[in-house]
Amino acid sequence: SISQDIDHILETQSALSVDLGGTNLRVAIICMKGSIVKKYSEHNPTTFEDRMHLILQMCKTAIQDAVCLNCRILGVGISTGGRVNPQEGVVLHSTKLIQEWSSVNLRTPISDALGLPVWVDNDGNCAALAERKFGHGKGVENFVTVITGTGIGGGIIHHYELIHGSTFCAAELGHVIVSLEGPECSCGSRGCIEAYASGLALQREAKRLNDEDLLKVEGMDVKLSEPITAAHLISAARMGNSKADAVLRKASSALGVGIVNILHIVNPSLVILSGVLASYYKEPVQHIISQRALASAQTIKVVTSDLEEPALLGAASMVLDYATRRTY
Amino acid sequence: SISQDIDHILETQSALSVDLGGTNLRVAIICMKGSIVKKYSEHNPTTFEDRMHLILQMCKTAIQDAVCLNCRILGVGISTGGRVNPQEGVVLHSTKLIQEWSSVNLRTPISDALGLPVWVDNDGNCAALAERKFGHGKGVENFVTVITGTGIGGGIIHHYELIHGSTFCAAELGHVIVSLEGPECSCGSRGCIEAYASGLALQREAKRLNDEDLLKVEGMDVKLSEPITAAHLISAARMGNSKADAVLRKASSALGVGIVNILHIVNPSLVILSGVLASYYKEPVQHIISQRALASAQTIKVVTSDLEEPALLGAASMVLDYATRRTY
Ligand SMILES: [Ca+2]
Ligand SMILES: [Ca+2]
Ligand SMILES: [Zn+2]
Ligand SMILES: [Zn+2]
Repeated sequence: SISQDIDHILETQSALSVDLGGTNLRVAIICMKGSIVKKYSEHNPTTFEDRMHLILQMCKTAIQDAVCLNCRILGVGISTGGRVNPQEGVVLHSTKLIQEWSSVNLRTPISDALGLPVWVDNDGNCAALAERKFGHGKGVENFVTVITGTGIGGGIIHHYELIHGSTFCAAELGHVIVSLEGPECSCGSRGCIEAYASGLALQREAKRLNDEDLLKVEGMDVKLSEPITAAHLISAARMGNSKADAVLRKASSALGVGIVNILHIVNPSLVILSGVLASYYKEPVQHIISQRALASAQTIKVVTSDLEEPALLGAASMVLDYATRRTY
Repeated sequence: SISQDIDHILETQSALSVDLGGTNLRVAIICMKGSIVKKYSEHNPTTFEDRMHLILQMCKTAIQDAVCLNCRILGVGISTGGRVNPQEGVVLHSTKLIQEWSSVNLRTPISDALGLPVWVDNDGNCAALAERKFGHGKGVENFVTVITGTGIGGGIIHHYELIHGSTFCAAELGHVIVSLEGPECSCGSRGCIEAYASGLALQREAKRLNDEDLLKVEGMDVKLSEPITAAHLISAARMGNSKADAVLRKASSALGVGIVNILHIVNPSLVILSGVLASYYKEPVQHIISQRALASAQTIKVVTSDLEEPALLGAASMVLDYATRRTY
């Protein structure tokens, strides 16, 4: 009927985004302009079967909701921790942050179950794609994004395109090593920037200080029921706790030196920091660059991301950029 | 005359190569197939004027010799330490290894004096170009070369092309940092792989041990007149000197971890080691990769270069690849 045709015309071309992190499994409906129309979040299950089941269930709910919201879903974009072969839509290998998540073909089962094309990439790479389409990376030929959340991820844009590498292991920026010894990392190595500066690493140090009764300072309000996190470490340092301050200085140094290594290897013109700790790290990272980078790399700009949800937006951008071409 | 025409036909298309290192200034006539027809070497002068004068003088001698050798010189390719803008033919900035070598336009004066087109790039980048045209990098889409000589340099080939970076500071692999503290580097930072594993760094440690009378072991023959070098450190370690061995282990670790960082940033399929210490470092570097790289990066191949003179051959390759196009 004519009214159905008009409804169809009024629909907004949209993507279904899935973000698989160490803690949460999230799904969102995202429209062409990059606004998040609706968002869903659950705890990420620890087994492969439960996780696959929940992904499909959440996607089906979102697809139903999309009809009412006048969003026409063009495809599904998936952002996940671990190494991903985006050509095949397969998670090759993941660290301990996501269990049972190696050699997992996401494209075939999800595409079959939902009848939609599916794109998959690493969370850090998705964040870089988000910056390229919607953020500070728009029109920038060479930039790097570093996400400090539970872990540390990243993506590298060179000549306007992602660097995936020969075995899809490029831009594993969390596992840039800044110490021959250094703390153990979830990847099995040690001295990685993730082991110094991620949310999990700071939480580990905050808990250690708290266990030794060295975290709380006068005037600091920590409820007994509340889990100790990186935020407590940052408040303690701000309130004069020198041990907390030393931990954060070391974390900032490690992250800064890791970023200097990125500058000396691919030399981007812009570094975009995102994730919950981005604004905390921006200033110390700039300071470390001024101390330890080659003169020719000093002109680099460091900014914090303006995007609310880089991984979800980047996963959507794969759909929105490629769905019309229908090529994987 | 007819005999002149035939002479002209029999000439081999060739390049003049210049290599400016921390120690020597070398010039070579290199023919299209990559063989070095004639080579000249002098000590690299410490002042800008003397260096420019000597470059021109050596090139003029080589150009005269080329006539007798039936080599038709198509242009001049220059390999130099420091950061280079190859589009302009300008050395932007150099470390202390080459004095008075910042903001130096090499193309204009040399091209004007010799009447030949001039190409310039960083020594590490030239080594990568040499591997791409004549060495293990032939037909390889993504590879990295790391040169351990007096200093440490490198070049990165991505999609068959060099990565130069936004300020021509990419692939400064000697200044990949593997320790938050660590030994001081010629670049002003500390903990760079060059400060641990270069010929100069090993020589520094060998001299230190020798000064403390801890270098020589029984049966080791060191003449008083002979300067102490990395080679003495290696022989001492092989003959059971545990202090020399510890220095070399730390150097190998540092180089290996630096290369792991390269793998986690650009993820090449091949690492080519060149320079005098390449064969020494190959095995320990492979070992460190097996210990500290992500599973997805373990498939990397590490080989030593077969090329006699990577920097000279790479400088020649710029001429031989681009001279017919006559574009800089
Ligand atoms: Ca990544
Ligand atoms: Ca280089
Ligand atoms: Zn790691
Ligand atoms: Zn350095």
